Formats: sequence, C-alpha cells, structure tokens
Amino acid sequence: MPHPTIHLIERRVSANQFDASHRLTDTEIGELVRLATRAPTAYNLQNWRFIAARTQNAKTRLRQLAYGQAKVSEAAVTFIICGQTPDHTTLADRLRPFVEAGHMPQDMASVWQENVGVQYAEPRAARDEAIRSAALGAATLMYAAEAMNLASGLMGGFDADAVAREFGLARNETPVMLLAVGRAAPGNWPQKPRRPLSEVLQIS
Amino acid sequence: MPHPTIHLIERRVSANQFDASHRLTDTEIGELVRLATRAPTAYNLQNWRFIAARTQNAKTRLRQLAYGQAKVSEAAVTFIICGQTPDHTTLADRLRPFVEAGHMPQDMASVWQENVGVQYAEPRAARDEAIRSAALGAATLMYAAEAMNLASGLMGGFDADAVAREFGLARNETPVMLLAVGRAAPGNWPQKPRRPLSEVLQIS
Repeated sequence: MPHPTIHLIERRVSANQFDASHRLTDTEIGELVRLATRAPTAYNLQNWRFIAARTQNAKTRLRQLAYGQAKVSEAAVTFIICGQTPDHTTLADRLRPFVEAGHMPQDMASVWQENVGVQYAEPRAARDEAIRSAALGAATLMYAAEAMNLASGLMGGFDADAVAREFGLARNETPVMLLAVGRAAPGNWPQKPRRPLSEVLQIS
Repeated sequence: MPHPTIHLIERRVSANQFDASHRLTDTEIGELVRLATRAPTAYNLQNWRFIAARTQNAKTRLRQLAYGQAKVSEAAVTFIICGQTPDHTTLADRLRPFVEAGHMPQDMASVWQENVGVQYAEPRAARDEAIRSAALGAATLMYAAEAMNLASGLMGGFDADAVAREFGLARNETPVMLLAVGRAAPGNWPQKPRRPLSEVLQIS
C-alpha cells in the first residue's frame, strides 16, 4: 500500500474559504512551526522566521497589506514566512551541537562558515537563498497542516515592503510568502488541473 | 494517532551517501515528478521544469558543475529543478480545463492573466517567483521520495550558469536546486539540530 503521504500530496488543495470561528492554540501553532523547521536549508543555516498573525488586530492589518484577501483574516492563523539573507557569523552556533555530538569535525564546520561567506557575498545570491529557505519551510508547514487535518492557502500577492515595515522585520529579512491555516469552510475549489508530465519532465 | 506524514517530516534527513548500484525506472521518476507538480504555484502558473539526470553521462556532467559532489552521480537520479519566469500568455492554457469544467468563470481567468502581466513586470519579482515555485516543487518531490522509501539530498551549491548552458535551459529558466534521489547507503548523518522555537516563531 502506498505511504499515506502520497495521498496527502495528491489531495491537498489551496483553500480560499476558511471557517472564521475556528481558532488554533499557541501550542498548535508552535507544533506547526516546529515541523516546518524540519525542512532542509543550505548549510543548515535555518535562515527563516515565522510570524503567526492570530489576533484579530494582526490579521486585519495583514489583510490590508494583502490586497484585502479575506482568507488572511478568516483563517485561524496566517503565517508571514520570512527568509533571512545568510550570515556566515551565525553558522557556528547552528552547527555547534552537531560538532559537540561528534557528528561533524570542527574543521568542516569552519570550512562551511567560510563557504557561506563566499557563496552569498553577492546580494542576488543571498536573496535567492532567503527565498529558497522560506519556500522550503512554507511547503513543509503546508504539509504539516494537512497532516493535522487543517486546510491551507499559500499567497504570494501582498505588499512585501509594507509587511516588512508593519511587522517589524529586520533589515536582513524578506517576507517571502503568506500561509493561511485553519479549518476549511464549504465552497473551496477542487485542485486545479496540472500540466501533462511530458511538458514538465525531461529524462536525460 | 498522528498522521504518518508528521513522522515522515520529523525523520527525513538530507542524505549524502547513496547506493551507487541502485536504479530508478522512468516510470518511478515520472511518478516522483507527477507528485512534485501537485505543489501549489501562484495563479496555477506551474512555472517549472524537472530535468532528471539518470544516465551515467548526464550525472557525470552535472557532478562536474556541482563542485564534484559525489551524491550527484551516486544517487539513482539527480533532478535539476528549474523555475521559469512567469509568462502571462501561458496562463489561459493552464486554467482552460478549470474554466471548461465550470469551476472558474472565464472573466476571472482573464483578470488573473492581466494580474500576472502586472505583478511580474519587474525582473526581480519574476525571478523571485521562479525560485518560489521551483522550491515548492523541490520540497514536494523530496517528501514524495521519502514516502516512496527513497532518500534525498537537496543542493544549492552548483554553477547555475553552467548548468543552464550544459543542459540547454531556455532563456526564461533558472536552475534553482538539485535534488539527488535514490537508496541511502550507510554513513549518513542524523538530522542536524534545529534552532529553538523561541528564536524562529513570533505569535502576534
């Protein structure tokens, strides 16, 4: 029998309609983010931050910056998923427990730190990595929600500069996506049709 | 009992050691990509392409462009996951079956098409969306592999310009990540330690 995750991936839809009376506890929100951060990041940088807008006030402010999309405030919580431009000085801390546990030699951790400094020296490369990490975290959060029997709706349409300002993001942070999570209400679309495999896959 | 996807997310590791004798069939590779494309994209753009390097020749060429990382050629297949800058003229085709099935009004599809033209007019916004879509596809492919009892290793370290040239990417395509997929060999690291939740989650 196929692993249940196969079916979960197949059945997931992007929800627009949420039950506005449904709430999530801080513990449930924490569990979603704990799972999201199991996603991989380059060099284990974990260059992300998750802001959970769950009060009516925070959701209303966020909705205004997302062109009024109703799901932002109707879902139990809407996450602002932020990517951070990689900072090589943070890496020693991120790898220390792994080095101390004897898995990674200290020399290797030092080489990784140098590599991060070189690889992300260009602003474009740094920004790309912020987006990559945040998107990997967003996808994992979305599947974690699905596994907890919650609906989710990912959004790219919002005023990123205004969100950064309004929610106090640091200079090295970019809001990459919003993810509404809650209980689905009736009226959601089925999954949208996908392109045929022959258009998107090339085997070399 | 928690959904098995929770455990799958928790247990996944980034593999470096693969069984070099293991092969995947074209059907298995197709199934992985079919699942990857169930990931969401903005406006259902599906602005991605998956190149599966599975022959020794393709894997060897790719490995050279990925700083010699052994897993590129030792894994059964290494995917080059490409993002495409959004092109509003493609959207009518992507939405047509959904409109014809009566889910989406034709007017709305036309508005979406206009929005795509406006939203991605700036090259930076277009590139960001290419990276977002490819990363969402990459994450989904990674969890699909895990569900099929395969190990995976995501890579951001490669010469993107050289990969684009060597593998004939179109002008609107960027190679966003490589993903090695195959059977794990002994010697892989455990999951790397994660930052405490208090550092990465803010509830507002």
